[in-house]
Amino acid sequence: MPKVIEALATMKNDQLATILPSPIREIDANFSTIPGILKLTLGEPDFAVPDHIKSAAKKAIDDDDSHYAPAWGHLSLRNEIAAYLKRRFQLSYQPETEVLVTVGASEAIYATMHGLFNPGDQIIIPTPTFPMYEAIAQAMGVEVVGINTAPDFILTPEKLKYALQTHPKVKGVMFNYPSNPTGVTYDSQQIQAIATVIAENDLLVISDEIYAELVYEGEHQSIAEILPQQTILISGLSKSHAMTGYRLGYVTGPAALMKHIGKMHQFLVTTAPGPMMAAAEEALKHGQDDATKMRDIYQQRRDLLLSGLQQLGFEAVAPGGAFYMFVKIPDFLNQDDVAFIYDVAEKVKLGIVPGSMFGAGGEGYVRLSYAASLEDLQEAVNRLSQYIALETTH
Amino acid sequence: MPKVIEALATMKNDQLATILPSPIREIDANFSTIPGILKLTLGEPDFAVPDHIKSAAKKAIDDDDSHYAPAWGHLSLRNEIAAYLKRRFQLSYQPETEVLVTVGASEAIYATMHGLFNPGDQIIIPTPTFPMYEAIAQAMGVEVVGINTAPDFILTPEKLKYALQTHPKVKGVMFNYPSNPTGVTYDSQQIQAIATVIAENDLLVISDEIYAELVYEGEHQSIAEILPQQTILISGLSKSHAMTGYRLGYVTGPAALMKHIGKMHQFLVTTAPGPMMAAAEEALKHGQDDATKMRDIYQQRRDLLLSGLQQLGFEAVAPGGAFYMFVKIPDFLNQDDVAFIYDVAEKVKLGIVPGSMFGAGGEGYVRLSYAASLEDLQEAVNRLSQYIALETTH
Repeated sequence: MPKVIEALATMKNDQLATILPSPIREIDANFSTIPGILKLTLGEPDFAVPDHIKSAAKKAIDDDDSHYAPAWGHLSLRNEIAAYLKRRFQLSYQPETEVLVTVGASEAIYATMHGLFNPGDQIIIPTPTFPMYEAIAQAMGVEVVGINTAPDFILTPEKLKYALQTHPKVKGVMFNYPSNPTGVTYDSQQIQAIATVIAENDLLVISDEIYAELVYEGEHQSIAEILPQQTILISGLSKSHAMTGYRLGYVTGPAALMKHIGKMHQFLVTTAPGPMMAAAEEALKHGQDDATKMRDIYQQRRDLLLSGLQQLGFEAVAPGGAFYMFVKIPDFLNQDDVAFIYDVAEKVKLGIVPGSMFGAGGEGYVRLSYAASLEDLQEAVNRLSQYIALETTH
Repeated sequence: MPKVIEALATMKNDQLATILPSPIREIDANFSTIPGILKLTLGEPDFAVPDHIKSAAKKAIDDDDSHYAPAWGHLSLRNEIAAYLKRRFQLSYQPETEVLVTVGASEAIYATMHGLFNPGDQIIIPTPTFPMYEAIAQAMGVEVVGINTAPDFILTPEKLKYALQTHPKVKGVMFNYPSNPTGVTYDSQQIQAIATVIAENDLLVISDEIYAELVYEGEHQSIAEILPQQTILISGLSKSHAMTGYRLGYVTGPAALMKHIGKMHQFLVTTAPGPMMAAAEEALKHGQDDATKMRDIYQQRRDLLLSGLQQLGFEAVAPGGAFYMFVKIPDFLNQDDVAFIYDVAEKVKLGIVPGSMFGAGGEGYVRLSYAASLEDLQEAVNRLSQYIALETTH
């Protein structure tokens, strides 16, 4: 338990120090100390990894896949990623030079931003959104231009054009759909409209499509299909196959850009762990049904939670994808979302996340993750109902 | 196979672009195209992961350790890391706030430098050394002050003092022992002498001791034992338990510094993969014998390679640790180490690494990894012997 010498006590990366630690995980940790709390906080599937995928990981361990893999990942996995993206989303990537395996989508985002941007560059990040995007940009001194997408949480061509007019030096757009935290996704026409603006302005788009397998109506269309020449696509197995803890993500894009991202990746982690790559390979090769089954279950959960919330007086609309419900706190309750969620946690032992933690536009909203069983979701509705009864009978 | 649009074709992090890609892996990849080549290039144990460690990883997979672990790693593993460091090296770290699990030592180095340094800061890196240190510093614009430790490859207090006098703004020292590539290690007195200079100058020392279990004479002493208040200790399971592909490393240090490193880590990878952490936990708990056995085998290999090289006319001295032999090319052969290794690869199909790739002081040297079987090492000596015969009979 060494105490640092005084001369070094304040040593830190000043840029990093401006970033608050992940508020969601902090709240989650606080909630974990409340006995009996029911948490709908984290974006974490409650499913187990399907058995055939586990078997593939264990086989890799038995087969001594314990030596350094190539820096970009096992080629057999990169082949499967390319084949999957072709089959599912009509994308064409060359496994050798355009597909990079990363330690989860987090490392993919980090390697992409740090591989392609310079301090002082500007990037557009529509909000409310996953707070990690802004944190990673800030960590390297990239300037974030926010676009508040409230109240419908859709990035429209108009909003994007306006941001570009007022910030003509912007180099790229961070895009995420289906969206964490709003569950909003985009149909082909909407994607086409955004892509047109991006194309007209020669922007890079970093598209985090990790929830692509969790779309409830229609088909997910990747923006990389429309703009392959200027899209860096980020995805992974965490959400589609409940493999969050295996930390397996990937990045694809034009080779001329990927070479910088791959270089950054090598400095970050050398390469991803072999047995986890074997699991991902199996998931992509033989696991399409797993993803479909999980999606159908999430959809039932969504529907139960949605109708429950609506009956309680929440103005909730059905999210098109991912596994989050982002809902406005009803007018008759405390409109301060941070105060609200702590009050709910204290009074009825339900853990949810305040909307303001996802950036401008999220104030007065809360995010509920429905990556939880139907029983837990019904119980969550019951507890919210109790809370409302408590608050309105004073 | 998208081609990037012209406007984005040169988009890159300019700082990153100044760094050459890992030359060792590039050479290794080149060599891999030569049929029948025997490679002593990578710092990669040829052993399999011991069975009880594999079983622990597989059990974690069966037990559904597939959800997000805490950002700093499973507490049970952090407890084992602290216990191991206490037992082996008399170090005292608090698992909750002073022990961070990383994706290999690479991520540990990255998170440490990027967590604690600012662009423009200066760090001392003695050479020849693992090229990743300088690359990671450069990637964030930290200025590297080199100390050429040739010809004995020992960082002496005098050399360190001189560098500090000429660079009074230096904030830290990157230290690595047993050393890659030289195999040099330090006894207690030598460590004490360096520690004294570091203490007098209030420097941070980042000490990469990943080869600590591979010391052939005497006992490894961690500089953290002498300077706990200003040391960031980096280690991992890759070398001690042949777990390179599992990518499991760790960082320890005073909590006031670790909080910044941990924050950086969270932005880099969120957390390490659960099943790989389970393997590390088992290795630390019940795997001390594995490390000892492997060390004894490496020692036999070292001795065979050493005597073989000496008989061929190399001025080789026994390395005290790690699994590398860093030897001067004999005067009667080509002194250009890069030309030399390519010539050797071409003429006798032996792959070794040029010393100059490890920085100033390595010119005219080559590195041979003896993480290879006795048969392969004997064959390597034979091929070098053939090479010498070819070169000297013209």
